[in-house]
Amino acid sequence: MPNPTAAMLVIGDEILSGRTRDANMHHLANELTRTGIDLREARVIADDQDTIARAVRELSTAHDTVFTSGGIGPTHDDITADAVARAFDRPIGVRADARALLQAHYDRAGQDLNEARLRMARIPEGATLIENPISAAPGFTIGNVHVMAGVPAIFEAMLASVLPTLTGGAPLLSQSLRIFRGEGDIAGPLGELARRYPQLSIGSYPFQQDGAFGAQVVIRGDDGAAVDAAMAELSAAFDG
Amino acid sequence: MPNPTAAMLVIGDEILSGRTRDANMHHLANELTRTGIDLREARVIADDQDTIARAVRELSTAHDTVFTSGGIGPTHDDITADAVARAFDRPIGVRADARALLQAHYDRAGQDLNEARLRMARIPEGATLIENPISAAPGFTIGNVHVMAGVPAIFEAMLASVLPTLTGGAPLLSQSLRIFRGEGDIAGPLGELARRYPQLSIGSYPFQQDGAFGAQVVIRGDDGAAVDAAMAELSAAFDG
Repeated sequence: MPNPTAAMLVIGDEILSGRTRDANMHHLANELTRTGIDLREARVIADDQDTIARAVRELSTAHDTVFTSGGIGPTHDDITADAVARAFDRPIGVRADARALLQAHYDRAGQDLNEARLRMARIPEGATLIENPISAAPGFTIGNVHVMAGVPAIFEAMLASVLPTLTGGAPLLSQSLRIFRGEGDIAGPLGELARRYPQLSIGSYPFQQDGAFGAQVVIRGDDGAAVDAAMAELSAAFDG
Repeated sequence: MPNPTAAMLVIGDEILSGRTRDANMHHLANELTRTGIDLREARVIADDQDTIARAVRELSTAHDTVFTSGGIGPTHDDITADAVARAFDRPIGVRADARALLQAHYDRAGQDLNEARLRMARIPEGATLIENPISAAPGFTIGNVHVMAGVPAIFEAMLASVLPTLTGGAPLLSQSLRIFRGEGDIAGPLGELARRYPQLSIGSYPFQQDGAFGAQVVIRGDDGAAVDAAMAELSAAFDG
């Protein structure tokens, strides 16, 4: 059975303007690979209701699971929850349990749960909350979409509580070989190897080191014996 | 007149599996902001012909300019040129001028221009070449799509030769203020400011430092006087 598929939606003008460098995509990619879920696509889009709602609809239809990051804070540009509610045609409003989490958090901090902060308790109808152990404001899951924070520490904490609820496939096994030859020299035999092991993914990633060109060849698949066999052939052809 | 819009397509399984961290998106975002072109969307997709062709068609229709990175090397998993040719319904084959560039490069290096390397001279009909000062294999422009290498040094060199050919709008001006208050405390006044300056984009980016919460507020726009005025109001409200 093929692995479940996933997509990621990074929401935020600050990434597209170059102000901030996204870090969550790389973290999610690694965690999903470990879990046996294939990340098939990642999109970075702007803080715009229509854009977000359309992308959520499209990706949640095309994939088993969708993860979003960003846009769930208290300020006027945090519009992800409303856009996701719209994507699923659900009403949205302040929810009592989410409000209670925030109230407890701000009471402890001696701060006021004002109107802006209360926006973070707006949850689409029918969603399940995702715990935020760092700053209380919860993420949520609706349908197959997990809506999480953009701040990396909070994104990672939320992902850690979502992942165990998902069913992964066979974790991807991978072996790699660093070959100090130009990619053009190894491309022929590599293509041949890929044809003989159609169940594996064989990738070649060029690098430059001390002025010489080389390639890191990575063989991936969930069939460990095939990965071993293909790597043995590759090593025999290019080692030493 | 609104600025021209752009989209980026990052092509490569290695990013989606977490093996490699993409660096080109952040570089492109910064360069486009400086040039006055709005990067509206960035997608990371897998090395798959149909997926690439579909995304190229979709993004090149929706935006003024599209940039792709990755998948133009000599190995079997380098299929970007063929996929882009398909997206534009153009034939593709080895082109004499591209072949001559490669021949000269490999002659200088005392290496063989073999069948695999010759794949890098496959260019869709009607495309213009993009110079590669590092390893010779050219990128190309077809319609409004600029097809460039994934290796960051080469991507950056290719982008540097493409950017002067594009017409930008007014470069985005930006000022920012670091406020040591929780986002929830500033969200109200910030939303009010955003309503009074609809021509500006006002973003709030939370941070945590020494256990205290704060927010970096960034005011962006192409109207310098408005950016100054809004920043003066913001500083008066939150400074000291």
